[in-house]
Amino acid sequence: MEQELAALTERLAALESSSGMSGTINSEIFYWWCTALMIAIHAGFLAYEMGASRVKNVLASGIKNILAFAFMVPTFYFFGWYIYLAFYNGLIPAADGAAGLPWDMSMGPNLADNATGIFWAAFTLFAATTASIFSGAVIERIQTAGFLILAILLGSVVWILGGAWGWHPSGWLTVKFGYHDVGAAGVVHMVAGFFALGVLINLGPRVGKFNEDGSANAIFAHNVPFTITGLMLIIVGFFGFLGGCIIYMPGEQWINIYGQPATLSAFAFNTLMGMAGGIIGAWVKTRDPFWMMSGALIGIFAAASGLDVYYPPVAFVLGTFGGFVVPMVAVWLEKMGIDDAVGAFPVHGIGGLIGVVACGIFASGYPNVNGMPPVSLWGQIVGAATMAVLGFVPGFVASYILKVFGLLRVPDHIQEKGLDIVKVPVSAYPESYTPAPVNVATPAAAGTPAE
Amino acid sequence: MEQELAALTERLAALESSSGMSGTINSEIFYWWCTALMIAIHAGFLAYEMGASRVKNVLASGIKNILAFAFMVPTFYFFGWYIYLAFYNGLIPAADGAAGLPWDMSMGPNLADNATGIFWAAFTLFAATTASIFSGAVIERIQTAGFLILAILLGSVVWILGGAWGWHPSGWLTVKFGYHDVGAAGVVHMVAGFFALGVLINLGPRVGKFNEDGSANAIFAHNVPFTITGLMLIIVGFFGFLGGCIIYMPGEQWINIYGQPATLSAFAFNTLMGMAGGIIGAWVKTRDPFWMMSGALIGIFAAASGLDVYYPPVAFVLGTFGGFVVPMVAVWLEKMGIDDAVGAFPVHGIGGLIGVVACGIFASGYPNVNGMPPVSLWGQIVGAATMAVLGFVPGFVASYILKVFGLLRVPDHIQEKGLDIVKVPVSAYPESYTPAPVNVATPAAAGTPAE
Amino acid sequence: MEQELAALTERLAALESSSGMSGTINSEIFYWWCTALMIAIHAGFLAYEMGASRVKNVLASGIKNILAFAFMVPTFYFFGWYIYLAFYNGLIPAADGAAGLPWDMSMGPNLADNATGIFWAAFTLFAATTASIFSGAVIERIQTAGFLILAILLGSVVWILGGAWGWHPSGWLTVKFGYHDVGAAGVVHMVAGFFALGVLINLGPRVGKFNEDGSANAIFAHNVPFTITGLMLIIVGFFGFLGGCIIYMPGEQWINIYGQPATLSAFAFNTLMGMAGGIIGAWVKTRDPFWMMSGALIGIFAAASGLDVYYPPVAFVLGTFGGFVVPMVAVWLEKMGIDDAVGAFPVHGIGGLIGVVACGIFASGYPNVNGMPPVSLWGQIVGAATMAVLGFVPGFVASYILKVFGLLRVPDHIQEKGLDIVKVPVSAYPESYTPAPVNVATPAAAGTPAE
Repeated sequence: MEQELAALTERLAALESSSGMSGTINSEIFYWWCTALMIAIHAGFLAYEMGASRVKNVLASGIKNILAFAFMVPTFYFFGWYIYLAFYNGLIPAADGAAGLPWDMSMGPNLADNATGIFWAAFTLFAATTASIFSGAVIERIQTAGFLILAILLGSVVWILGGAWGWHPSGWLTVKFGYHDVGAAGVVHMVAGFFALGVLINLGPRVGKFNEDGSANAIFAHNVPFTITGLMLIIVGFFGFLGGCIIYMPGEQWINIYGQPATLSAFAFNTLMGMAGGIIGAWVKTRDPFWMMSGALIGIFAAASGLDVYYPPVAFVLGTFGGFVVPMVAVWLEKMGIDDAVGAFPVHGIGGLIGVVACGIFASGYPNVNGMPPVSLWGQIVGAATMAVLGFVPGFVASYILKVFGLLRVPDHIQEKGLDIVKVPVSAYPESYTPAPVNVATPAAAGTPAE
Repeated sequence: MEQELAALTERLAALESSSGMSGTINSEIFYWWCTALMIAIHAGFLAYEMGASRVKNVLASGIKNILAFAFMVPTFYFFGWYIYLAFYNGLIPAADGAAGLPWDMSMGPNLADNATGIFWAAFTLFAATTASIFSGAVIERIQTAGFLILAILLGSVVWILGGAWGWHPSGWLTVKFGYHDVGAAGVVHMVAGFFALGVLINLGPRVGKFNEDGSANAIFAHNVPFTITGLMLIIVGFFGFLGGCIIYMPGEQWINIYGQPATLSAFAFNTLMGMAGGIIGAWVKTRDPFWMMSGALIGIFAAASGLDVYYPPVAFVLGTFGGFVVPMVAVWLEKMGIDDAVGAFPVHGIGGLIGVVACGIFASGYPNVNGMPPVSLWGQIVGAATMAVLGFVPGFVASYILKVFGLLRVPDHIQEKGLDIVKVPVSAYPESYTPAPVNVATPAAAGTPAE
Repeated sequence: MEQELAALTERLAALESSSGMSGTINSEIFYWWCTALMIAIHAGFLAYEMGASRVKNVLASGIKNILAFAFMVPTFYFFGWYIYLAFYNGLIPAADGAAGLPWDMSMGPNLADNATGIFWAAFTLFAATTASIFSGAVIERIQTAGFLILAILLGSVVWILGGAWGWHPSGWLTVKFGYHDVGAAGVVHMVAGFFALGVLINLGPRVGKFNEDGSANAIFAHNVPFTITGLMLIIVGFFGFLGGCIIYMPGEQWINIYGQPATLSAFAFNTLMGMAGGIIGAWVKTRDPFWMMSGALIGIFAAASGLDVYYPPVAFVLGTFGGFVVPMVAVWLEKMGIDDAVGAFPVHGIGGLIGVVACGIFASGYPNVNGMPPVSLWGQIVGAATMAVLGFVPGFVASYILKVFGLLRVPDHIQEKGLDIVKVPVSAYPESYTPAPVNVATPAAAGTPAE
């Protein structure tokens, strides 16, 4: 019988080991698909941003967007991941962050580590999303070099510092203030939106956006169907993004990024309800399909900080509120003389702000783990303020410096011609799309090459 | 040794518990991705429906489609899910349906329930798909208010009632007739298609569709490449949809919605074979890429009821048959004076009908569980008739009432101008796309065939 | 106590069984999603290929692409899968390949087999991808019948023969030469690229591509934004493709197709780093968004053979190199008088070649399992040469025969009119896109307001 017992023990140990490995593998798969779907966010942003440009700038917008993604990957490999792991205490790196240095064993194929590569990939895509958010705001007049510097600064330094502070189990915002932002409303969206705002101030409006008297002209997206379909693809991708916000614990309940137990089911309820509210709110306010689909995003951000805890109708109300209010912010921003081509600051900056603060109202008192303070309105306000400043200041300062060096803005006469004709060796629509009624006019125009 | 045994028992219990939890989580993940991919169906429908409209109505079509999705979410939360859980016996709610009421514990974040949220999400997306199917048929002349009422009626009441009857382990169609419809050919597609037919009769054709003598004019999709790419995205999303039709049983073989064992592998075989057949059948018949991609859908529906049981070449033949026959139904429908803008009734109504009936022929006698009758041609015919009536009658009656109240149809003179210019604050293509050859300019130009 | 032990043994056995089944199901799910995402490759290719055509040929390109997918499914069912299982030794089928014959028990729903259907589906999508690669090269002048024969030959015979040789645990290239090509750089991309080259020689250039003196004219993609968004969707889908290149071993570490242990994490690192490098390399060289997104693919292929083993910065360098060099090959090809409409040979043929050979340099000596030789430069060169010949010869010979029978090339006068007007019953853009500026002409037309 002792033998039987020994045999049984051995079988059990084998099963424990295979169960553990299954958990590891299934976790790796989960984040693999998160990463894949986040690339759908990029396909969506690409369609959205090109559709939102005028014909004369379409490909310049596309190139910028693609490059933002491309440059995020190596920079996030070489220093972004390290920043996340090291700077959770503030601005002084912790020693254990060394695991994120590119020469660490974990930063490459490693049969004993099925996690780092896939987590790095998911975070890299977060970074790329952040850069893409900023990318839309500055279309049609930013220089490529300046844009790339800013995109790298935002995607591989600034937001991930925010991530280390407020979206890391040991981040100081969480540890000291109980900051709760499971869906990254502050860490990703506010940072990106406020960074964009900082840049926009120095970059200035597109030529022709404002009249001498300060009144604004509408500059229209050239292909709205393409733009809104792109936005729907972004929603698809957000299931990858939000999946990347929850931690698979083999054999246990999920935890959110702060270690609190959570479920994907809760995420599913609140993501869809927030999204639906956002569309409806924006529809009531604007009737404009561009804003309706932006409202879908706003609604998700408005519910994002508390995706794990809200009663779903709360998420719906938050989404509706966000979808209704944010377009008004866009109007106000234009009145302030800021030309945010796709509403990146209102949608992401204010949408994210609503999300962070709402969590202090609707989830106040939600208990934390490891002795960290519970969710509180004060903690959320501190977090929101931190994210706003963290986004705005580097965006403003860096773009100011670039401006001084003449690397920020495309000269007005080139803007007038269109960026594509000057900077891109091919034409977006060589067989048509060009002769906008207002521009064609004279027979002479017919001789002009397609822009 | 007793101690060893106790220790072993404890380890085993721990492993049983963690294994159980792993199953729960992996199931939750599966339906999370199903939900995400079903949003790709929406991105696809959005592209498809806008592409299928004329330029003057593009954004009105898009808005309608987006709103259908948005309104489905809260309505399915507040009553759709309840209908599914409560009405499986017919029209009298069962007591256990109370779990679907919005104040039930399961209808929100709940650490003891990793299933409800995600199942609700997947079903909500089924509802949204159903509403989108209907949405395409009525483009270019339906009023937004009337459309929304009909979409909510279809998506959050009618089809889910059909789901309770024929796509629920205790649904009366299954319990009494052995109705077998694993891929929802009847429950989703027939219901949506026949509902659309009922509405189309009251809605009437687009202005200019029919001549005085009853002959029909072709009204062309303005952007066929966008439309067919949208349809391919819908195929991507159908892997989410069909994944949502099979039940993950942790540690056991899959079961279909009726409790019969099944495999995803069978779904993979038959989905692809049906799809391929549908494309080829429609190609042989029409040479038209719009119909070829519609044929891909038809082929999936034609095989859908028996995805779990068919020998794959059977699915291919069914798909080919459906792809060949359904375009003929579209021609017949037009001859009847019905203007179904995207062929929603032929594709979904008749495609689904072929699927349901075929299962009574090719899977007749397939045994059932829990003493329910086996699959039979009679059971399938009863099911098909039920779905046809369930879809048609509410669609016809509700649209008739809306018509009486003047909420159904956009007045002809507005249709002529185009819905966008009257109802949408932005233009789809402000820089071009407009001057269609026939409208522009010189007689000479008008004679040039579109290239 | 004996009873307790018996009870424990029983519980353990139950748990072992349920654990095993969980592994089976989770593996099935993994490849289900791989398959779904590979259909996104098709949506991407469809957009890409139509966008890359001129307006007059848009739908003919789309039809061809859709048919390639549709015909791959049944042919891969009836003989492609058999070829993979049977021909690993060369050209003489092995007996155990009979499991791939369409009348085998595994080739349909089978409750004891959760694997074959899903593996078949994933491989069918590989085949369809292969056919789509070829499809892009030959647009705007190939006959449908000839194209279909070639596509079936490539997708359901030639590449899968290469797969049996170099991408099968018992393939002779692996067994004898230690050929290492985990991401199918040679097996899929080289074969497809060299097949396309073989066909292009017989097919000849599009009318108007070359002048009398041999100099080339640019033929422009009519919708570059659509094309590059399609390419980004292909990148999304590549996570499905590459997922299909690694084998889920329930309860154990992943293995690559050759049986060597591997991780998805390594795939994630190197896929993203290769992709980013490819974009940047192509950008530096061309500034052309079409080449940048093609560069994303080139970068993946350049890293593909060693996705499991490279230090990620190596993948980045390989991608950058590929992205920089391949556009030069495209220029050279044009100088040789070959008209490869989308650069299929440079991107896939040469991109894949770089990938295969690089693995012999950067992973040389990497040990193999089951006594197979380690990775070596020589083995990789043999593999690359095999794939080049395997692709080129059938493509050249078959297209030569088709040419003799007049089934290959659309007559020049029809090319001039455009394939759509002759072969497709609908128009791609009936309301516009046609009258390119030079055709519009009169001032009157310019005055018409945008609708």
